[in-house]
Amino acid sequence: MNPADLSSQPSPWINQPGPDFEIVISSRVRLARNLEGYEFKPCLSAQRQNEILEILTPALLSLDQKLYYIDVDKIAAVERELLAERYLISPAHVRGKGPRGVAIAEEENFSAMINEEDHLRMQAYAPGLQLKACLDRVNQIDDQIEKKVRFAFHPRFGYLTACPTNLGTGIRVSVMLHLPGLKMTGQIDKFFAAARDCNLAVRGAFGEGSETVGDFYQLSNQVTLGVAEAEVVSNFTEKIVPKIVEYERAARQTLIEQSPYVVDDKIQRALGVLRNARLISSQEALVLLSQVRLGVHIGRIFEIQVSKINNLFFHLQPAHLQMRAGKSLDPDQRDSFRAQVIRKALSPN
Amino acid sequence: MNPADLSSQPSPWINQPGPDFEIVISSRVRLARNLEGYEFKPCLSAQRQNEILEILTPALLSLDQKLYYIDVDKIAAVERELLAERYLISPAHVRGKGPRGVAIAEEENFSAMINEEDHLRMQAYAPGLQLKACLDRVNQIDDQIEKKVRFAFHPRFGYLTACPTNLGTGIRVSVMLHLPGLKMTGQIDKFFAAARDCNLAVRGAFGEGSETVGDFYQLSNQVTLGVAEAEVVSNFTEKIVPKIVEYERAARQTLIEQSPYVVDDKIQRALGVLRNARLISSQEALVLLSQVRLGVHIGRIFEIQVSKINNLFFHLQPAHLQMRAGKSLDPDQRDSFRAQVIRKALSPN
Repeated sequence: MNPADLSSQPSPWINQPGPDFEIVISSRVRLARNLEGYEFKPCLSAQRQNEILEILTPALLSLDQKLYYIDVDKIAAVERELLAERYLISPAHVRGKGPRGVAIAEEENFSAMINEEDHLRMQAYAPGLQLKACLDRVNQIDDQIEKKVRFAFHPRFGYLTACPTNLGTGIRVSVMLHLPGLKMTGQIDKFFAAARDCNLAVRGAFGEGSETVGDFYQLSNQVTLGVAEAEVVSNFTEKIVPKIVEYERAARQTLIEQSPYVVDDKIQRALGVLRNARLISSQEALVLLSQVRLGVHIGRIFEIQVSKINNLFFHLQPAHLQMRAGKSLDPDQRDSFRAQVIRKALSPN
Repeated sequence: MNPADLSSQPSPWINQPGPDFEIVISSRVRLARNLEGYEFKPCLSAQRQNEILEILTPALLSLDQKLYYIDVDKIAAVERELLAERYLISPAHVRGKGPRGVAIAEEENFSAMINEEDHLRMQAYAPGLQLKACLDRVNQIDDQIEKKVRFAFHPRFGYLTACPTNLGTGIRVSVMLHLPGLKMTGQIDKFFAAARDCNLAVRGAFGEGSETVGDFYQLSNQVTLGVAEAEVVSNFTEKIVPKIVEYERAARQTLIEQSPYVVDDKIQRALGVLRNARLISSQEALVLLSQVRLGVHIGRIFEIQVSKINNLFFHLQPAHLQMRAGKSLDPDQRDSFRAQVIRKALSPN
């Protein structure tokens, strides 16, 4: 698997059908594990990092499922960025130092980082609301690996992690949500308040920072200790997310019924600008793509497949653009090339 | 000539070729005349207004050139507005009271208002910078009429007019300019300063008020007393307007050379919004059409004929829209119908 080959390809899993995918773009479950007998990452020498790689890499590459290994320390900076833009490694893994790697499933819906904040971080993705499937997948792989290595485990605290917020199950559950209806009807603050009440974190998705842009939100749990994995997942899957989906759907319906012209105008203008701009920032592109995605899902835009929009979320980011262009681009050049990539993707022909 | 028939037709003269028409949209010369032995308009009774109509109408309708007469007092308010939007009558003539009319050439490049501020106001239009042709035309018609009626004339002051600012030749000369280059390069204030120095008035064109919108300006003389008609016209034609055209052309060249991407982006976005908006105000439409018109003239947009844009300047105004829709439209409905008319006119197919 060569990162350069990925720059103009879709993320294979994101456009498969999934429950409520018009609102829940994707689900993700992550597990954090550490090897018994090794210091946590902040205290590890390069040599001990190498030992961990030598233990975990063969374990990962001998699973039932074929994974591709990438030596994150050896690849170019822009390739690391590209992997992060595809959610295959974390920003921390990009910035990290020393021997570290990632094993990736061909469909890109599973990856395992070695020597990130913890010795092993595994994550599974799925389109739509499919946290249970993600959990089953990481658990299954976790079980297979645990037959080969010993993870640091405490009878009372559970799995030990470098950061105490991951202690216990070491599970982090998140969904990526698209909530333009709540935003346009002025109800998005209710979503933020509800998330806060449930002790969930809200961050931006697809952004270069963690600010929220274009009505895309990443919602994740913050508590791992004392809550069973299955409980976290069922809480998300059966209570929290369905409620948000219900509200967002109602908001979209309200928009269509109460101000169809205003909504149509917004959506069509967004499409018009995307199809015609010669310079566009990633921020503006996300805002406009959000409106077009809404348009597709509420039946106001027919000629564009939602997969084209989902793919652009990845392809418009700086590393994807630069790998695709085959050279380094300054921000002005990126704005120009980004506009070109969008025009090509959304062209009416 | 029925005003209702005009609402979706182009103004016949505006799209003929004319010198410098990419910057000088049109030229206009107006003469003001009053009948000897009659009070000026503010003091005229309805009966005396009728007498003036009875003298001037046959004189106008028996000219070499065929004119169509419209009884402005009898037609619907929206029809009066439509005539004003086509520059065939003035806003004052729309608002006026009592017996009044207008005689119009079929090509709409000449009209003569009876009982406006003066008893007779004649105006000739031409595309591009053609003030001399306009002057010749109104002079020729003036001479023909003067063979049939006696105009109030003072050996020292010249032609007498209701307002002293028109005294003398009674001539008002104006050009409609499109100056997006000066605006985008930050030099438009120089144009305003130069106009002030030359004692010329600058107003908006195509607007519902006199504010300037979308880089369209109407430049006109303010002094009529003590300056010969030919001098006013040659001053405009040989000195003032060519200088403005030269600066605007240089500004456009600068834009193309120094920031082609920024200009392209602006122009193409404008076209994208115009082709996709579902609601648009007349103000926004003018701003965007200005950018598209620039794009056509600097060779960045190829698929749109400038005539389509010129026609829209007329067709997007409230009375044109309402006459075309066949019913009264509130501002929201106008914004919706205006967007529809634009989409139809600028559609890529």
